[in-house]
Amino acid sequence: MKKLVAGIDIGGTNTVFALVDESGTIHGSGTFPTNRYEKFNDFIIAIRDGILELSKEVDFPHKIAGIGIGAPNGNYYTGCIESAANLIWKENLPIVEKLKILFGGVPVVLTNDANAAAIGEMIYGGAKGMKNFVVITLGTGLGSGFVVNGEVLYGHDGFAGEYGHIVYKREGRQCGCGKRGCLETYVSAPGIKRTTFELLSNENYQSSLRDITFANMTSKDVAMAAATGDKIANEAFETTGRILGEALADLVAITTPEAIFLFGGLAKSGNLILEPTKRAFEENLLKMWKGKVKLLLSGLDEDNAAILGSSALAWKELNR
Amino acid sequence: MKKLVAGIDIGGTNTVFALVDESGTIHGSGTFPTNRYEKFNDFIIAIRDGILELSKEVDFPHKIAGIGIGAPNGNYYTGCIESAANLIWKENLPIVEKLKILFGGVPVVLTNDANAAAIGEMIYGGAKGMKNFVVITLGTGLGSGFVVNGEVLYGHDGFAGEYGHIVYKREGRQCGCGKRGCLETYVSAPGIKRTTFELLSNENYQSSLRDITFANMTSKDVAMAAATGDKIANEAFETTGRILGEALADLVAITTPEAIFLFGGLAKSGNLILEPTKRAFEENLLKMWKGKVKLLLSGLDEDNAAILGSSALAWKELNR
Repeated sequence: MKKLVAGIDIGGTNTVFALVDESGTIHGSGTFPTNRYEKFNDFIIAIRDGILELSKEVDFPHKIAGIGIGAPNGNYYTGCIESAANLIWKENLPIVEKLKILFGGVPVVLTNDANAAAIGEMIYGGAKGMKNFVVITLGTGLGSGFVVNGEVLYGHDGFAGEYGHIVYKREGRQCGCGKRGCLETYVSAPGIKRTTFELLSNENYQSSLRDITFANMTSKDVAMAAATGDKIANEAFETTGRILGEALADLVAITTPEAIFLFGGLAKSGNLILEPTKRAFEENLLKMWKGKVKLLLSGLDEDNAAILGSSALAWKELNR
Repeated sequence: MKKLVAGIDIGGTNTVFALVDESGTIHGSGTFPTNRYEKFNDFIIAIRDGILELSKEVDFPHKIAGIGIGAPNGNYYTGCIESAANLIWKENLPIVEKLKILFGGVPVVLTNDANAAAIGEMIYGGAKGMKNFVVITLGTGLGSGFVVNGEVLYGHDGFAGEYGHIVYKREGRQCGCGKRGCLETYVSAPGIKRTTFELLSNENYQSSLRDITFANMTSKDVAMAAATGDKIANEAFETTGRILGEALADLVAITTPEAIFLFGGLAKSGNLILEPTKRAFEENLLKMWKGKVKLLLSGLDEDNAAILGSSALAWKELNR
């Protein structure tokens, strides 16, 4: 009987789930709004029902051998989602325990989105066979998943790998975390918008971006303007890439990965972001690492990356 | 027959070696100037002879079950000392292979000084039973040894954990590594001297430190002046501690250790450095880590720390 695992990705907006085999082929998927259920228990039951529904539609004999969950503030050690700002349920949510009971004791593994992306990269993506690498997710924030000696770096409490909150600039931009100058206030979708507004105020170039309010502008507007040769937009990418490259050079001095993968919305801008990042990265590495650490775009299919990451968590546990 | 291991600490000036049992008791030690031997092979033979000499003097039946070596640029993976700036032999030095042959194939383990200090802390010091911690060595530079999931973080190439070379301040002080603004240009014995000279030029307080040249001043002069209430000296410690605390708060966001241990010359200044470090550390931690990560002075006996660290490497390997 073929083994499948269920991958679950819990986002602030939607929860997506799917059945996935070990090669990364998806055998059915479903989704519903995360905040549809007032009670966490009803949310869990909806996940179970959704997965069992998918299982009925699979047209070959199979069993669900494990479950992997990616969720904001998902703690690998405790199996709980702990004080996630984007979810409506405020207590500690023992999601692993509950799903384990509902699925007859199969292995259930939880971690945060960036760590799930890292495991996805290791099982299905560009990090196959690598023991030491890092995945940087660029979206509304900057997330990071560190793999060290073939294992995700969870740290003492399960929450390690918050590279978005190292300080890039002392007394710099206000961050949502309460600190100032965190890397993600510079390198993320909102970060490149903030840099764009800094450039709009410092420089005199004409730019279509002068006609968009701060509230309305998105990083896509900056990318579209850059594609038409807009000088402000191009400098915004250049600056964002430089800062990312500088920060990743520091990262190499700490965990010394074989490769760093960039993943997520901003990474989709391709060479606009990758080229200045690579340049600053190489310039700022210590001599012994120059030319030796790969800086790559994620090898995961973007549309299914979250689900693949979550299911990869389960495969990693089953193959332990 | 009681098992002993040989611990070897290779410094730019002296090489020290000793026989050590598993409880950390030293059964004889010796030393000679590292640069006494023009040929690396002669140096190796001198180490062997020294260790065998010690063994003869031990008054109980024993065998040498393993050898641990701490050396600048010692690579755990390759067993070679690679391009160490402070040693006279410039080629890659296959010290593990050579000692293994001379000692009949016993396990021989090599790493750098800071990693050896970390393993020493784990086996004999304050990190007993900890799986995730960091040792920061404060001396002529700032070294770091990271332990993650109970293992030293060696990274892809064996050289991970160079926290002294993350950039504290872009375009800041010139570092010996060729970059600018590295943490160790601020936090180290020369770093506190540089800060003292910055303060001497910026402030008008009277200070006994105004009578010492840059070439002559040491961090001990600053510590001695601080003990007499010298305002410049006290501010130098305050600034150095603040910078260290800020940098260690960032470190927590990356590997999230249970504890951070401070070790070495500057750490001996005790509360002069520890108090401002702790204050800045707590202020700069993300909320979820405030009050939860211990910042401690090393639990290792300072005089024998290097030897204990090296021998602990061997015990760690034997108990694997």
